Order: sequence, then C-alpha cells, then structure tokens
Amino acid sequence: MKITLAQINFIVGDIDGNKEKIIAAAQQSKGSSLVVFSELSLCGFPPSNLLGYTDFIDRCEKAIDEIAERCDTIPLLIGAPVRNTSGKGKPLFNAAIFLHQGKRQIFKKKNVGLTNYFEPADETNILQLGCMKVAVTIGEDLYNIGEDEFLMTNRIDDFEEKPEIIVNLAADRFDYQRAAKRREILRMTALKHEIPLIYVNQVGGNANLIYDGGSMVFGYMGYVIKSLPFFKEEISTFDCELFISMKREDNQLIPSKMELIHDALVLGIRDFFQKQGFKKAVLGLSGGLDSALVIALAAKALGPENVMGILMPSQYSSDHSVTDAIASAENLGCPYHIVPIKTAYDAFEETLKPIFKDLPFDVTEENLQARSRGVIVMAISNKFGNILLNTSNKSEASVGYGTLYGDLCGSLSVIGDLYKTEAFELCRYINRDKEIIPWHTINKPPSAELRPDQKDTDSLPDYPILDAILYQHIELSKSAEEIVEQGYDEVVVNKVVKMVYRNDFKRFQLAPVLAISPMPFAMREMPIVKK
Amino acid sequence: MKITLAQINFIVGDIDGNKEKIIAAAQQSKGSSLVVFSELSLCGFPPSNLLGYTDFIDRCEKAIDEIAERCDTIPLLIGAPVRNTSGKGKPLFNAAIFLHQGKRQIFKKKNVGLTNYFEPADETNILQLGCMKVAVTIGEDLYNIGEDEFLMTNRIDDFEEKPEIIVNLAADRFDYQRAAKRREILRMTALKHEIPLIYVNQVGGNANLIYDGGSMVFGYMGYVIKSLPFFKEEISTFDCELFISMKREDNQLIPSKMELIHDALVLGIRDFFQKQGFKKAVLGLSGGLDSALVIALAAKALGPENVMGILMPSQYSSDHSVTDAIASAENLGCPYHIVPIKTAYDAFEETLKPIFKDLPFDVTEENLQARSRGVIVMAISNKFGNILLNTSNKSEASVGYGTLYGDLCGSLSVIGDLYKTEAFELCRYINRDKEIIPWHTINKPPSAELRPDQKDTDSLPDYPILDAILYQHIELSKSAEEIVEQGYDEVVVNKVVKMVYRNDFKRFQLAPVLAISPMPFAMREMPIVKK
Repeated sequence: MKITLAQINFIVGDIDGNKEKIIAAAQQSKGSSLVVFSELSLCGFPPSNLLGYTDFIDRCEKAIDEIAERCDTIPLLIGAPVRNTSGKGKPLFNAAIFLHQGKRQIFKKKNVGLTNYFEPADETNILQLGCMKVAVTIGEDLYNIGEDEFLMTNRIDDFEEKPEIIVNLAADRFDYQRAAKRREILRMTALKHEIPLIYVNQVGGNANLIYDGGSMVFGYMGYVIKSLPFFKEEISTFDCELFISMKREDNQLIPSKMELIHDALVLGIRDFFQKQGFKKAVLGLSGGLDSALVIALAAKALGPENVMGILMPSQYSSDHSVTDAIASAENLGCPYHIVPIKTAYDAFEETLKPIFKDLPFDVTEENLQARSRGVIVMAISNKFGNILLNTSNKSEASVGYGTLYGDLCGSLSVIGDLYKTEAFELCRYINRDKEIIPWHTINKPPSAELRPDQKDTDSLPDYPILDAILYQHIELSKSAEEIVEQGYDEVVVNKVVKMVYRNDFKRFQLAPVLAISPMPFAMREMPIVKK
Repeated sequence: MKITLAQINFIVGDIDGNKEKIIAAAQQSKGSSLVVFSELSLCGFPPSNLLGYTDFIDRCEKAIDEIAERCDTIPLLIGAPVRNTSGKGKPLFNAAIFLHQGKRQIFKKKNVGLTNYFEPADETNILQLGCMKVAVTIGEDLYNIGEDEFLMTNRIDDFEEKPEIIVNLAADRFDYQRAAKRREILRMTALKHEIPLIYVNQVGGNANLIYDGGSMVFGYMGYVIKSLPFFKEEISTFDCELFISMKREDNQLIPSKMELIHDALVLGIRDFFQKQGFKKAVLGLSGGLDSALVIALAAKALGPENVMGILMPSQYSSDHSVTDAIASAENLGCPYHIVPIKTAYDAFEETLKPIFKDLPFDVTEENLQARSRGVIVMAISNKFGNILLNTSNKSEASVGYGTLYGDLCGSLSVIGDLYKTEAFELCRYINRDKEIIPWHTINKPPSAELRPDQKDTDSLPDYPILDAILYQHIELSKSAEEIVEQGYDEVVVNKVVKMVYRNDFKRFQLAPVLAISPMPFAMREMPIVKK
C-alpha cells in the first residue's frame, strides 16, 4: 500500500487556485491508496474572518464537488471548512474530507483552538482504508505529549477502537524551536500508541506567518522513515512496508537555528511579494547592520535587481555610514540612490520655528530626521511601486527604540522578530563563505546616528544583556523579579521591563512582522492602556 | 434581603488600584447580603496576555486575601483569574469568588470564548446565600437566547437544581446595538427560567474597547426593576422584595443611537488619556467634518484648553478650509496654530527631483502633502507632549482612502468606527441645541483637497450609497453578489468590495480605534495576503 504526502504552498482565500493545486497533486499520485493534504488546504491557512462570508463556504463546497469529480479514482484526504448543520454550536467544523469514487466521509477537528467559527467535534474519526483503520486527526488534535501538562488532550486517547495508522493534517507555523518540538511530540505519540503516524504540514508564507513544511512519516519504532524538506513544496509517495523499518539514519534532520531562520525569512519575503503580485522592494540603507541584513535577505528572495536601497544621510551621519551602505548594496548588485535629508529637515525646522521658538533640541528633532526619511522612502515606494521593507529588529521594538512613521514605516517587517544579537548571528551565517554583508557594518558599534556621537549603548544596556533580559521576559513570560533572581542587575532589569511595558502602543502600529520566534509580538496581545 | 450592584471603572492590570476600588465599594455597602462586581473586576477586563505572567496571578491572589480580610463582614462576589490546579487543561479559570467571614467559594466560567489561558469549567455554580440558592454565571454563560441559534449554550440549562436567583458578572463591550440586544437576551433568560436576574457590567474605556455599564435587575415578570446608568460608575443597592414588582415604568431606558455613540466616544477619549496619565491632545484641523467632529468630542472629554488644533493649509486648500477650521476651534475655545506645509512640501519635491525627474503628479504628491502634515503634527506632539488624535472615519478606512504615516497618524482613532454618514449624524446631534461644529463644515461637499477642485465623490460613490454597501459587507458579512441582489449597482458594489478587500494592509497599521459598531475592523481579523 502506497500513501502520498502532499506538502503544498497554498494561498489563503484562493479557493480556485488551491483546488487546482490539489487536483494536480492528486493526478500525479495515481496508484496511491491515499493522498494526504494539510489542514484547511482548500481555503489556505489561516482563513480568519473570510470564514464569516457565506459565499466563501459555498465556494469551498463547489470546489470539493469538483475535486471529487475530477479525481474520482484517487483516494484523497483534503482539509476544508464544512458547515455545522446540527443547529447547535458554532457554524462550521474544521474538517478533513475523504473523497473516493463518489464516497465522501467527513472528519472533524476536536481541538479547534482560538477560532470564532469552528465548533469542536465530539465524535472520533476512523477512516476504513482497505483493511486498515486510519485515525484522522487535524492539527493540535495530536499535541498532548511531552513536558507541558497543559497542552490539549491527545485525540487518540478518545478512540474506542485502536486505529492502525494515525494521519495528521497540519498547518503548524514555523518558529526556530518548533521543528524539533514537533518531531518529538509526534514521535512520542507514535511510540505511546505503537502506531505509524503520517504528518502533513502546510508550507509557505502568509503575510507574517511562515509555514515550514517538514512533513514526515513515523514507523512503529518511532523513527522517521520518510521526511519532506523544510520551506519547499513536495509531493512524495512512500510504501507502507517501510513502517516496520528500523533505519535510524533516515531520521528527519533539522537544520541549525540560523539556517532555519534564514530560509524562513527568505520564503516569507518571497511569498509576501509573489502572492500579492508584487515584484520590487525598496528600503532605507543606513550603513548599519539591520538594513544591511534586510537587503541581503530581500536580494536573495526577490533577486538583487528588484531591491532598491535608499541612502538618506544627515549632518549626524558618519562617513562610514555611507561607505558601508554603498558596499552592502554593491556586494549584492542592488541598485541604490543617495538622497540627503538636509533640505527636508531644514524645511521642517523653519516651518516649526514660530511654534518651537528656542526650545532645545530633543527627541522631537531626532524623530524629525527619522520621519523625513520615512516620507522620502515612502514617496519612492509610491512613485515606482516598490514595496517598502521595514528594517527594525525585536530588541528595538521591545524597548520602543524607533520612530513611529519614521524608521518604523514599511509594509513588511523582515527582522522584527529577531533580537539584535540574533541579527548579528544571522549576518555571520550569511557571510559564512564570503563577505556578503560588509564586515565593517557587522563589527562597528550600533548607532542610530540621530545626534552627534550617539551610540545605542548610551540609552540601552549592551545587546547581549538586553536581549537576554528580553528573552526571559517576552519568550519565557518571566517577571522582573524572577529575572533579577537569575543574577541580572535589578536597576537594568526594571528599566528594560518598564520599557517593554510602555511601548505596546508603538508595536500596535508596526507593519506585519515575519514571525520566527516562539513569541512574536503579534501573538503576545497586550492591553495598550494598563497599569 | 438587600443586594448591591457595583458598576465600576477598572484599569486593566492595576490590581492594587482595582482592589482599593472594590474594598471602597464594599465598605459603603455594609448591610447588603451580597455585593456583586463585574467580570474579572480585580484585574480589569480584558487582561489579555498579562495572564501569562506568574507574578500577575500571584498578585491577584494576594489582593483577594487582602479583600477577604478587610471586608470580612461584607459578602462579596468579585471577578478574578484563579489557577487551574487539576493538572489538565489550560492554566487558569475565569472565576467569580464569593468572600465572606473566612469562607471562600470559587465559581468558574463555562463559556470562556477566545482566550488562550482559561479552561472552561464543567461544574455548575450554586451559591447558598442565606436560604436562597444563587446561580453564579459569568459573561457569555448566559447568552443563548434569541434568534441566533448558534450562540453558546445557556449555562442555566446545565443546572440540576433550580436556582432562585441568577447573578451574571459581565464585561460586555459597548456597541450601539448592544444595550438593546443584551436587555432582551437577559430578559428572556429571566422569563424562560422564571427567576430574577442580576446583571453587573463593567464601565469605562480600555484603549479601543468601551464598556458601557447599564447594569440591571430583572424581576420574576421579566421587567427591569432596577437599572444603573450607562457610561458612569455607580454603586447601588436594591431590596429583593422588588423582584415581584410589575412596574413597567422602571424598565431600562436606552438612549438614542447617536446619544450612545457620543457618550461612548467621550468616555473612550477621557479614559484613554486619564488611565495613561495624559492630559493634552493635538490634532490636525482641515476645515472638514471629521476633524471638526473629533475636536468637539475631545474638547468635551478633556476640556477645550487641553485640545490643540493645527491647521496645515497647502496650495490646494480652499479659503473656507481655513475659516471653517478656525471656527471649529474658536466655537469650542480650543487653542490653534496655523502651520502651512508649503516649505516642507517644496523641500521634498526638490529632494526627490533627481530621482523623480519629470514624472507626472500622481498619488505620490498627494501622499507627500498628507505626510508632511503627519510629520508636523507629530513633531508638535513630541515637543509638547500632546497626544495626537487621528481623525479618519470608517468609510475611508474601509476603502483605503487615507495616507499611511500621513492623515492616518495618531495614537487613538476617535471616529474610525463611524461611517461618514454616521459622522454627519453625530455632528447634527452635537449641534442639536446650538452651533458647536460649524454648519458650513457639515453642509459642504467632502474633499481631501490634495489636488485642484478635488471631491471625495470623484473616486468614491456618494456616501449614503457607499456606507450602505459597506455596512452590508462589513457588519452583515454579505458578499458582493448578495449586495447586488438587494438592488445596488453591480459595478459600484464590486468596486467597493474590492477596495475593502485590498486595504487590510493599511488597516493593519492604524491606531487603536474606539469601537462603537458591532464589527469594528479590530475584531474582523482578515488575512493581509490573500486572493
């Protein structure tokens, strides 16, 4: 018996396009006893409030009919929303639908998580596939093994008759710890129940969310007997005879943290552009590490000729800021322009003089520089249709070190979920074979260059300390007190935690941030008004 | 037997402050057999991811101990998160806690809705109060009566023994339809079970969310025998003898839609400022209706002396735009400044000339004007510490008629959940006794004045038609096809729906919007990348 895993990059809401991808994958898998797709494959994941539109569900239903008809001879298991016709509970189920020779069987997700639309199912799901009983589970239905006792119930525990194979249709977003965690959760599920397990995950970027694929099959012994690549589409068939394999060497290999993050960000940028029909990007190049990193990632994702750098020096800019910025564009082969901000900045000073009179230079004037740059780079974006990439990082976003409507402009934040120390590390990863990002940029002390001789460390602790505190507070939800107990300086910790606490209003207005950590700010939802 | 309803304005996360408010309310209610507070009163609602911090829950526990001790003789029912110690499910319960003379009884919410942290309770909640059995329910536990069969299960149906009173601790956000819906849902619950019902709602603004209070008591006959005001704190005691009252005249009176919206927005602005320790606001005054409405609302909320208007005329500004803007500030007694944008705009044109060369005037130059204004008004905000109010409306936000980092700047969007036609109506409501908002502003054709003789209707349908289509699509989740079936022009509907669909990226970066409709964009969560 052969089973096919279809790891596909779907577009949210593109029911017709996704339908065609499903049919194409099915047709190249003739002879398989089952072709398994990912969670909500038909509508793309996450569909969010598109589910609230009646015609959206109607169109899903029509597409299912068409798939059933055109793939009549190929047994398929696809993900789609289906209506709850019971008259009780929420209007939809998050379902897996088995289609074969006019037969149609619907399996519903139990642990529906956060959505407004899905009713949790209460029946167990057994698909009779030839002489095999297959347990059909969706996403988090399987996540209840491991150290965290608060994870949801494992669906297999509910089954009265023991299945012979577990299938899991997933749309499990990427973070740099996730692949290893997921593999162990699934392995332990297979081992606990002594059943082979087939896991199919979505791949691709959907705005801020990145899905990494990494679909795999576990045999009886809990080894990965088949694994699909990360960050790439693949349709791949295996023979169930492999279930008894004890080959350890074919275990899923997980790339290093920096390789994962790199590939995730490149895919995230590429899909953000391709799926919206955009080709060209623009960004401000300061000569600093963040913009040098973003242009390198964007050049990789979109091609260097499609990424335009804009240098916007001011009177406070160092000489090396310009030479480093030029080097970062030229190393990659990206076009660039130099647009000094002096004229614009002076115009604002003159315009505001009657109101500001002789009040001293303060953060207002720093912001005026950042905002003059924002206006310039947005004008270039408007005029030429290049999408503006934001270059701020997670350390800055955490403590509010950045200017709203200035350097925080942009349609997509590329490295906004990387702490500065991680941005450094990623630069070194990119430069592992040769200098792509200028070493001088990587090695000089970070500075916003908004006043004479400014350094980031004038107002912030050194990044390794800052980032360690931020990681404890944001990723691990530790309070200031708990962080101090670990040996960090109390004054520093309290200052940092207070800065995080006070800057939710700024983060609220940020561009979508490509999510690569276990706790991106978009998922941390914090009240803006609080005490 | 006397029972007290404590309708209080809590601050999210301010456990100490909320604790003191609870204790003060309790102490002025001595002699009551029960003092009822709103849902999650101790931590304020919604606490969001503050619940993820261990020390936050620790501090709640300590505060509960202190309340129990200091109010020992007064029977209280407060709302707070409590730990789930069962080792299964999510880490917390959303609970009501009864405190009296060392006794402590915990009642848990069943229908916990969307949160990440709360495990739904599976036991029913009976509080023995003297000889009375009181059913303790929280928020949506009661919402299952009325036309919508998909609303959640009504908790009272679960109870094995019939209670003699129903109590509901709520934090039910305001929308202009909500008070009437809520009153009918609660009335039908009381009638169905033939039990008196006590409903206590939170009051106050928390960033974009507004809670309207309107707590009330229903007698056996389903009449409101006691009602507390909307949008105000009140602690009020009634005698349970009233339960048998048949007085119709004391039914809760619900103000008109415009009065509700007006009072909600004024409370929303005031609490946004007060709870964060801000006093002063600033906004751009264009001479148009939106900014005239916002300055009137802000002057009411903060005092006219605390609201500064900035007029930023350009070469395309009409004469009346300046005179109307001045009138709107002077009518209220607000300070204002005139800051022409010509110098800044010309500086950007000059700066960009080497790149733009002779490319024609397009949306880039329109945006340059809006963004020059954004920079100016943000600089004034930074220099003087005035918080920038955003003045865009929901019609604009829907179709993307507005400039990111330009007129979309601001820390709080005041009328971003009002369609333009509703903004007109609210102006007329404010002017019902005398001219506060200049009538000329209200009566002239809307224009962004970003190019010569521009009118909104150059690129948009008339507002009454536009808003009717938007309401169908956004509030009622109707597809383009369904809207056309109602008799609207197909070309117009398709154009409008497409504009809504394409502008999620803009709405993503908006300031928090005071929510007054049943479907504010913040709750409509849509994928940015979609097809």
